[in-house]
Amino acid sequence: MRFVIIGGDAAGMSAASRAKRLRPDMEVTVLEQTRDVSYSACGMPYNIADPERDMEKLVVRKAEVFIKTNKINLLTGHRVTAIDRRAKRLSGIKVDGDAFDVDYDQLFIATGATPVIPDLPGFDLPQVMALKSLEQGKFIKSYIARQGVKTAVIIGMGYIALEMCEAFEKRGIKTSMVKPGSVFLPWLAPDLADVIYKEIVDKGVDVYSGHVIQKIESRDKGVRVTCKNLTLDADLVLVAMGVTPCSETAKAGGLELGISNAIAVDPYLKTSDQNIYAAGDCADAYHIVTGKKCWIPLALRANRAGWAVADNICGILTRLQGVAGTAVFKVFSLEVARSGLNFKEAVESGFDPVETSVETRSRAHGQPGSTSIYIHMVADKKTGRLLGTQMVGKEGVAHRINAVAVALHCKMTVADFFQTDLAYAPPFGPVWDPLLTAATQLAKKI
Amino acid sequence: MRFVIIGGDAAGMSAASRAKRLRPDMEVTVLEQTRDVSYSACGMPYNIADPERDMEKLVVRKAEVFIKTNKINLLTGHRVTAIDRRAKRLSGIKVDGDAFDVDYDQLFIATGATPVIPDLPGFDLPQVMALKSLEQGKFIKSYIARQGVKTAVIIGMGYIALEMCEAFEKRGIKTSMVKPGSVFLPWLAPDLADVIYKEIVDKGVDVYSGHVIQKIESRDKGVRVTCKNLTLDADLVLVAMGVTPCSETAKAGGLELGISNAIAVDPYLKTSDQNIYAAGDCADAYHIVTGKKCWIPLALRANRAGWAVADNICGILTRLQGVAGTAVFKVFSLEVARSGLNFKEAVESGFDPVETSVETRSRAHGQPGSTSIYIHMVADKKTGRLLGTQMVGKEGVAHRINAVAVALHCKMTVADFFQTDLAYAPPFGPVWDPLLTAATQLAKKI
Repeated sequence: MRFVIIGGDAAGMSAASRAKRLRPDMEVTVLEQTRDVSYSACGMPYNIADPERDMEKLVVRKAEVFIKTNKINLLTGHRVTAIDRRAKRLSGIKVDGDAFDVDYDQLFIATGATPVIPDLPGFDLPQVMALKSLEQGKFIKSYIARQGVKTAVIIGMGYIALEMCEAFEKRGIKTSMVKPGSVFLPWLAPDLADVIYKEIVDKGVDVYSGHVIQKIESRDKGVRVTCKNLTLDADLVLVAMGVTPCSETAKAGGLELGISNAIAVDPYLKTSDQNIYAAGDCADAYHIVTGKKCWIPLALRANRAGWAVADNICGILTRLQGVAGTAVFKVFSLEVARSGLNFKEAVESGFDPVETSVETRSRAHGQPGSTSIYIHMVADKKTGRLLGTQMVGKEGVAHRINAVAVALHCKMTVADFFQTDLAYAPPFGPVWDPLLTAATQLAKKI
Repeated sequence: MRFVIIGGDAAGMSAASRAKRLRPDMEVTVLEQTRDVSYSACGMPYNIADPERDMEKLVVRKAEVFIKTNKINLLTGHRVTAIDRRAKRLSGIKVDGDAFDVDYDQLFIATGATPVIPDLPGFDLPQVMALKSLEQGKFIKSYIARQGVKTAVIIGMGYIALEMCEAFEKRGIKTSMVKPGSVFLPWLAPDLADVIYKEIVDKGVDVYSGHVIQKIESRDKGVRVTCKNLTLDADLVLVAMGVTPCSETAKAGGLELGISNAIAVDPYLKTSDQNIYAAGDCADAYHIVTGKKCWIPLALRANRAGWAVADNICGILTRLQGVAGTAVFKVFSLEVARSGLNFKEAVESGFDPVETSVETRSRAHGQPGSTSIYIHMVADKKTGRLLGTQMVGKEGVAHRINAVAVALHCKMTVADFFQTDLAYAPPFGPVWDPLLTAATQLAKKI
């Protein structure tokens, strides 16, 4: 059986390794367009922040190891451009310009997602960059050092934009963030977003929301970003306006696309073609709270879905239950986390939501070093079900959100969640865990 | 309606405050034998560690505030010695020696637990102490400063013993720990216990397991602890051999006692007498995993059960689902947490357990500052149900355990737990959360 995988990062290499472990005799081929496989893309902002740290450290396992030890037919520099589903054949172009084609019995598309780059003048200038690949990450890092970058503009204000604004600040780069949307972090409850806003402004970052970008132009060594009523000069521009699934080749091959143009898959990761799977940032998923399709590109799902594809191909029927959209990131001294739906998403999904925001403490009464934890919690008024939670604080946020993620998987009510026996010790929280305080406030509204 | 409460700490004052909030017209009387109410007993070891910190800071709300603001009839220095259930009357002795009696319509016993002090020679010496009350805590702290304590022996090796050994070390006191049992931390998986053992020995603490204590004698300014084949000299002895429920008065009044001599209560916190409730460290509880009675004296349960008693007395029928025994403590640089059953408890509860231990990392690949997280996980082979988890590590342990606590409340299988969408970002953990890594290893054994 010829198992062919397009894409050699989280989902692709997880599937390749697992398939070879389950079926050492299976012929497993991975076609990766860049030179890098199996690296921690999420680690790039943190690595760029530290000039002493080698970016190669983000590589979890080198291509040679996959080839020699795992006996995977790993072909880097191979870009697939077409899928002929009738002939079960892929064709593409190698990095040296030569064409190639590969036949498959079972195909796994793990092409990931790519940064959205707007079709505006100047976004193709060499000083305008995006965290697209390890190669791009390395380029940005060396560019900062080589060019002595002093100022930067980040276009966008998502997770990566915020992580990168911290990275730039740590490199001594004066940073401005700009985006067309008028609300700073629209997916977050306003009172929580405000805590983050204050933190980044306090750290010296200039934030410009509600500015439609018109063009970027060269100017001396750097560039000028022109918006309506605003111009920003900088040595470097980072575009972090979100990502879009790499699904063009799948679409051209006749596969069904779903929400946000991600490749539509069932809970077994199968596409509309019985011989083709898709997973990772290029594919959609079921949301555990709504039961509906969603596209939330995150690393754990990619790894897990890669495993599941290998299982299904090797005859271990594996059904994924869905995602909760649990995410966490760090920005300066703050931890920011979420799981499940926010109020607006709950309304859009047909729930009748109620919400509450509480500010509690990170440590017990009388324990020094305590800081604020801000929690926003959403539930369904009709059923009492917990729908989602967001948290911001200097400590005790990143791992605490996991209790919510598990509760969402179990479709717990807020009343039942309030009964859970959470851990307590003075250095780690108040007797009533912040999540329980939020739950009891929310329960009053149900 | 005369609502009378015996005991003015976590459970008692929670109930009193909530009852007055729900029914401002209710006559609420609290009888507390010491002078202190509503203080963070769990905070005492951490407070003793720091000579600069005033121990009064552990008081959450002063007695005067409860009396003046909350209109609670709070009587400190009142020790109840008898319950006449037929007459619905309590009698007791005041701190000044005078007798008193109080009539009740509904009674709530929240007498807590008290340190076990063995009936051996010398345990009544003034240098032999226990963390029995805030007053005792203050005494220990001032004794250390006043006497210039240089050496201490801690008898026992439970949570409080370990927290106190850190507190002593921080005060520059050379500390030995001794106990009769031969296994260092028998409730913890041996590989995890070993991590803690190494940590405390590394910090200069001498650990003597398996030494039956025979007597304590005065010796110069200090004392000598004599065991079989071992004598330990010290300026101070702390007895931390566990606690026992304060249930004698309840028993003498004819109330039914349950496991470990705790007062037996139903899920509504009602005792065998329809007009008497009990909760907190003096009462038992249902275990969420086994469905059976257990006695696990912890602060959150005490507070929650106090609330529930007030609710039930005020006509808001509140049923508690049970405890998971979730606990966390800090010892030197380590966080130690558990929830649910260990292997031995699982066998004793009639499960057919399987277990696994994994060592994973606290941060993502390539992220500096990463340390080991040790996880031990237990499941039922027959049903696949998750039964319990223990964790030890320098970071990422204290709040991560809550995901397990929620899973136990939902009676999740390990396979379902493995599907949960936990948070990931490089500073906070690997892509596969340590709990998921443990779950997948354990799933292989089911």
